[in-house]
Amino acid sequence: MSIFVLPARGHSTHNGALIHSTAMVTLYNKIANQSPERLAALSDGVFAFALTLLVLDLHLPEPGSIHSERDLWRALVLLTPSIVMYLMSFLTLGIFWNGQQTQMNYLARCDRDLTWMYIAFLFAVTLTPFSTKLLAAFIAYRTALLVYWLNILLLGVVLYSCWQYANRSGLIKEDTPREIRRAIRRRVVIAQSMYAVGALLCVISTRWSIAFIFVVQLYYAIAPRKLQVRRA
Amino acid sequence: MSIFVLPARGHSTHNGALIHSTAMVTLYNKIANQSPERLAALSDGVFAFALTLLVLDLHLPEPGSIHSERDLWRALVLLTPSIVMYLMSFLTLGIFWNGQQTQMNYLARCDRDLTWMYIAFLFAVTLTPFSTKLLAAFIAYRTALLVYWLNILLLGVVLYSCWQYANRSGLIKEDTPREIRRAIRRRVVIAQSMYAVGALLCVISTRWSIAFIFVVQLYYAIAPRKLQVRRA
Amino acid sequence: MSIFVLPARGHSTHNGALIHSTAMVTLYNKIANQSPERLAALSDGVFAFALTLLVLDLHLPEPGSIHSERDLWRALVLLTPSIVMYLMSFLTLGIFWNGQQTQMNYLARCDRDLTWMYIAFLFAVTLTPFSTKLLAAFIAYRTALLVYWLNILLLGVVLYSCWQYANRSGLIKEDTPREIRRAIRRRVVIAQSMYAVGALLCVISTRWSIAFIFVVQLYYAIAPRKLQVRRA
Amino acid sequence: MSIFVLPARGHSTHNGALIHSTAMVTLYNKIANQSPERLAALSDGVFAFALTLLVLDLHLPEPGSIHSERDLWRALVLLTPSIVMYLMSFLTLGIFWNGQQTQMNYLARCDRDLTWMYIAFLFAVTLTPFSTKLLAAFIAYRTALLVYWLNILLLGVVLYSCWQYANRSGLIKEDTPREIRRAIRRRVVIAQSMYAVGALLCVISTRWSIAFIFVVQLYYAIAPRKLQVRRA
Repeated sequence: MSIFVLPARGHSTHNGALIHSTAMVTLYNKIANQSPERLAALSDGVFAFALTLLVLDLHLPEPGSIHSERDLWRALVLLTPSIVMYLMSFLTLGIFWNGQQTQMNYLARCDRDLTWMYIAFLFAVTLTPFSTKLLAAFIAYRTALLVYWLNILLLGVVLYSCWQYANRSGLIKEDTPREIRRAIRRRVVIAQSMYAVGALLCVISTRWSIAFIFVVQLYYAIAPRKLQVRRA
Repeated sequence: MSIFVLPARGHSTHNGALIHSTAMVTLYNKIANQSPERLAALSDGVFAFALTLLVLDLHLPEPGSIHSERDLWRALVLLTPSIVMYLMSFLTLGIFWNGQQTQMNYLARCDRDLTWMYIAFLFAVTLTPFSTKLLAAFIAYRTALLVYWLNILLLGVVLYSCWQYANRSGLIKEDTPREIRRAIRRRVVIAQSMYAVGALLCVISTRWSIAFIFVVQLYYAIAPRKLQVRRA
Repeated sequence: MSIFVLPARGHSTHNGALIHSTAMVTLYNKIANQSPERLAALSDGVFAFALTLLVLDLHLPEPGSIHSERDLWRALVLLTPSIVMYLMSFLTLGIFWNGQQTQMNYLARCDRDLTWMYIAFLFAVTLTPFSTKLLAAFIAYRTALLVYWLNILLLGVVLYSCWQYANRSGLIKEDTPREIRRAIRRRVVIAQSMYAVGALLCVISTRWSIAFIFVVQLYYAIAPRKLQVRRA
Repeated sequence: MSIFVLPARGHSTHNGALIHSTAMVTLYNKIANQSPERLAALSDGVFAFALTLLVLDLHLPEPGSIHSERDLWRALVLLTPSIVMYLMSFLTLGIFWNGQQTQMNYLARCDRDLTWMYIAFLFAVTLTPFSTKLLAAFIAYRTALLVYWLNILLLGVVLYSCWQYANRSGLIKEDTPREIRRAIRRRVVIAQSMYAVGALLCVISTRWSIAFIFVVQLYYAIAPRKLQVRRA
């Protein structure tokens, strides 16, 4: 519940505009500059839930249809696409959890707008299990791929906006070097460009798109540090 | 488990009423004045779960009924009302999460009664996914809208009572200015008045009610800070 | 994974028993005396999940069977027993969350055994949604009531054992007054006696049992502090 | 989102390689050396969810088939295997939660690779409810046992790799004695050997395997400290 507009409105003429407006700024700062700890806790909860949610869609084989070890084996092999999609969604969420966590590590404090932007980010996070399931069920349909990609795009755009806003509003720790600020920004742009390329590949085949996006995500999860280490 | 009534009852005559009662007050303070950290963690968990729960009701289209991209597209378009309700419930929970978090930021400590009042608040939070689903399924029924509104009213009333109780019991940080105390109170009242107006609009049509409440919530999430900034 | 037995076994003859055994005690203390923060976080997560889980069993009325506001109203009235059981389960979990949190507030540190005892407590916590659902579905059956009561008994017994163990093992903050130690113990015993009386009432009728237990729980949530305040 | 490779690539020739590379190392350290708190919070959330998830598979008896206390009693007895599997999964997750928590207690900080290794560990954690359910449903099938064991093996291998990596990369608190470092490693190896023996027992019968693994897990949860105490 936002709590700082109304006093500004209702009171500014009561007890002297000048004194009051100074008080209001203090009031405003006191309320708006909160530590981002609880937002982090809420985010971790939402991510934890979203990460675990897709396992509910790994349905057991029907006991009635299983009569031998081979039947069970085959039934499990049929689950492979679901498991791959599960892994892919885990990677996506892992990447964006890392992204948000990195940003929040540099936050000195958090105001209401940024809080709401991160809540919008969490909204996109909770949509991920749905868009992943949709893609797994309709793997040959471009519409499903488009929805999946729009989900990733939304995650990227909101996360990018959060960082831009935090930079402009002076919410970031002052000792954060410019290079880090720029690096975080550029990183989102490059990753999103890759995802867009992946999405475009659906002109050829949705499977190419999925494979490409999967490889990009694996790269983000596994590769970068290794290259860095070699260079350092 | 409450742990301070019984000793007061059973012991007060044993080893001298005066000495004992002083000891009891110390005992009582020691037990009752807890830091609200774990309550915050429990709340964040409940909110995270409730926020993510509604995505389970975004059901995939039946694969058997989908034969072309167009079929899938249409099936997704049919999901729009569910997604809008999902967004609306996200906004509601986001607003009340912010409200509770703002209050708890000003708490110096938490006693048993306040803990239980916040647990009652969490009860209302966990009802939100149900009342939202009900409204989505019976969007033209006033009964459904009434249940939804009663849910929001309950959230507001309990949150308001928490703040009143915390103020009266001296649980709030001493340096909290009066204006903030008042502002938090007034904010709940004004928001709840708006919701009540929205609920009343169902005399015309439940859709008007929903649209009105949706706009009020968007306003609370997006607008206020902007106005504040222009004024400052 | 427990990590301190094997070195004690395998190494004690290698590099001098005396030196080694001192090192082992240090080693042991280093590993065993952990701060209970992560256990608290795990517990809050489990409680948050268990608290929210029962809302999944509030099923929407079948849209096909609803043709008027009255139909919907009646369908919602039929949900009342489920909602009452939901509330009851919320109370139970709230009481035991408070109980565990109070104990952990007094813990100076946590060893492996206590960790496992609290994990056993969490096991009983996760059973609560099941036993509550069972009782709601078979409200006239003594077997269902027995299962419900056994669940509460398990919660109480494990929580009591945790406190006893923590006291005996010196894991409690040294400045914790004896009265508090005793009060926490006594409180569990008295509450459990009440629950047992409630369970016994099923000889007359399970509904009497449920009503009695419900009142006891409401008393624990609402009443005690009021009495305390009047006395102070 | 990894954020430190690209500047290294794109910028190293712009403004003087030497100065820049020093800046890059600082940059790199600032970004990479994060405190593991949020990773712990995410892990606790995932574990809490996974621990509670299996209770959803304790299905209530069909009300239509229950006509007497005896019917209900028998229906509940039929649930015993599910409850035993639930308990077993709780033990498994409890053991690995303890394992991860112990490791993280010794972490001074966390870099990106280790974060991703722990996310892989969480992936294995979320698979546990599935593999447990599979084993409960197909208790006589070696394929189901194999899947269950592969799940445990994956948990062990990833956790072992995390510790090895943290040791090699200097991420562990400097005052951690060598014995502890070794003990943690050895413990995983021994536990995994036991599980492998258990899995091999399925040559005789899967029930022997399950019984053996169950006993091993109970031993890890209950026994070790007792032995330690006798020795100290």
